[in-house]
Amino acid sequence: MDIPPNGVAILGRGVDDAIREAVRSAGGMVAAADSAAGLVWTGGPLDQLRESVARASHLRWVQLPSAGVEDYVALMRQRADITWTSAKGIYGAAVAEHAVAMLLALRRGLPAHVRADSWSSDVASRPLVGSGDVVTVLGGGGIAVAVAELMAPFGVRLRVVRRRSGEKFAAPHDRLLGEQDLEEALAGADVLLITLPLTQQTQDMLGERELRLLAPGAILVNVGRGGVVDHAALLSLLEQSVLDGVGLDVTSPEPLPPEHGLWSHPRCLITSHTSNPDRWRREQLVRLVRDNVGRFTAGRDLRGRVDVDSGY
Amino acid sequence: MDIPPNGVAILGRGVDDAIREAVRSAGGMVAAADSAAGLVWTGGPLDQLRESVARASHLRWVQLPSAGVEDYVALMRQRADITWTSAKGIYGAAVAEHAVAMLLALRRGLPAHVRADSWSSDVASRPLVGSGDVVTVLGGGGIAVAVAELMAPFGVRLRVVRRRSGEKFAAPHDRLLGEQDLEEALAGADVLLITLPLTQQTQDMLGERELRLLAPGAILVNVGRGGVVDHAALLSLLEQSVLDGVGLDVTSPEPLPPEHGLWSHPRCLITSHTSNPDRWRREQLVRLVRDNVGRFTAGRDLRGRVDVDSGY
Repeated sequence: MDIPPNGVAILGRGVDDAIREAVRSAGGMVAAADSAAGLVWTGGPLDQLRESVARASHLRWVQLPSAGVEDYVALMRQRADITWTSAKGIYGAAVAEHAVAMLLALRRGLPAHVRADSWSSDVASRPLVGSGDVVTVLGGGGIAVAVAELMAPFGVRLRVVRRRSGEKFAAPHDRLLGEQDLEEALAGADVLLITLPLTQQTQDMLGERELRLLAPGAILVNVGRGGVVDHAALLSLLEQSVLDGVGLDVTSPEPLPPEHGLWSHPRCLITSHTSNPDRWRREQLVRLVRDNVGRFTAGRDLRGRVDVDSGY
Repeated sequence: MDIPPNGVAILGRGVDDAIREAVRSAGGMVAAADSAAGLVWTGGPLDQLRESVARASHLRWVQLPSAGVEDYVALMRQRADITWTSAKGIYGAAVAEHAVAMLLALRRGLPAHVRADSWSSDVASRPLVGSGDVVTVLGGGGIAVAVAELMAPFGVRLRVVRRRSGEKFAAPHDRLLGEQDLEEALAGADVLLITLPLTQQTQDMLGERELRLLAPGAILVNVGRGGVVDHAALLSLLEQSVLDGVGLDVTSPEPLPPEHGLWSHPRCLITSHTSNPDRWRREQLVRLVRDNVGRFTAGRDLRGRVDVDSGY
């Protein structure tokens, strides 16, 4: 069989002309899996991906559609001979905006106003702008960078906690900390924004003890992964008004079952993992595929290479 | 009597330790009116201010607590030998943040999520960041400037409409228009943010005809005055889905009566004129006093000098 070096298979759900056109316009040739050098996976049943990868004996690169890659770790380990790239970094801005939207909604008492059916002058509102409040962002990836950019005009004191204290952070911030400084980063923070992926290190990272380090009346927003934070502690600290508000776009378990007490707490705002809506994601993914196919066919470094050992 | 050059009298309602401490920490000395070189007025009956000013024979500066100074014009004219400063510019940021909070909440479908009591993946979410959408801001004052500053990182196309087309606008924007260009400014806008005061010119400025110039599915947010926009038209255009969402911090009439249909429309978000909460205002005033007392004792230019003839 003739194996073209620029053959790219496109597999998974919702493959459309836009993504095929992105491959072609970047110099790729749309190919079947068994003759493909690259594979763009748009999501769907993992078995389908596993079988396609097994069949594609000439495969050198797989593009995954998501930023989080926890579902793919076993397969990636098994096939460490292949270069795996994820969508890390490209969805950051939309997720960051969602975090800012939830934060401002909670500070401004919007959930109480939504529920009101008449004028309610007694709903508390705490402007963030000009407050000089401490906002701690957990995670130093694309979402965190975008959060820092969006929040720059608010005049808050931004603490960013990323994994390796040596890493740079390319957006305005007040303090950079490493994960060993977690307690220092939490201490007295008025806002905690969680943008972390789920890894062995981040699983259950935040329990009641850690959350009690925040400033009284702090607001917590999670747009990373639900498993990072103890949801029973969230409810209990809301009920005690240790936390003033909680905004969750991700939960543990996910979906959060309807009987969970967080659904009915008036200062808990839950969105259903919509920070990064399908249409917007799709547009961004098409852009990334165009860019990476161009790099692949030109033999250049690919964007979003996964480091399987660190899990992202 | 010995007249200290840094003596500052603090008069009016709600004088507290915070404001006294602001005067002292900036190098001022809290003084009685008759020995004061400066006077901080925190608001209250105008007669009290008038009498204090008359008694303070060494007075060179008065700090007023509000941005609007219409109540003080007669006294300021009478005592044009004194420097008068107002709080103009310092409250705009909180109102602007409220507008941004409502806008993001509506784009992200937060009202629907607040009402949901279980996982709701079908709520529409439209990120603003990176959309390149057109955001038209009506008004060119302190609120509009702060809106432009807060929205700068979102990468939207900002059209600003202010009264006189010659005036400058000291914040990032895409296009500056005058009020004669209103229709052009509305045409195709994805977002309309109203920051206008109520004047003869702005009363009923926006009816159904004007609102239909916006892009289909536009979002309207009003943090100026309710009388600028026809509320029956808002409800009707929401019901026809010509407008995708409406956020009101001000209404007409105000308070909006409980039987008004806007209360129950799922895509209308009403807050109760809370964009500029009392406590926040007070904190900003304390900061301004600290800053201006420091400038006064150092003989430097004061912030917020009132131009009595232009009325602000």
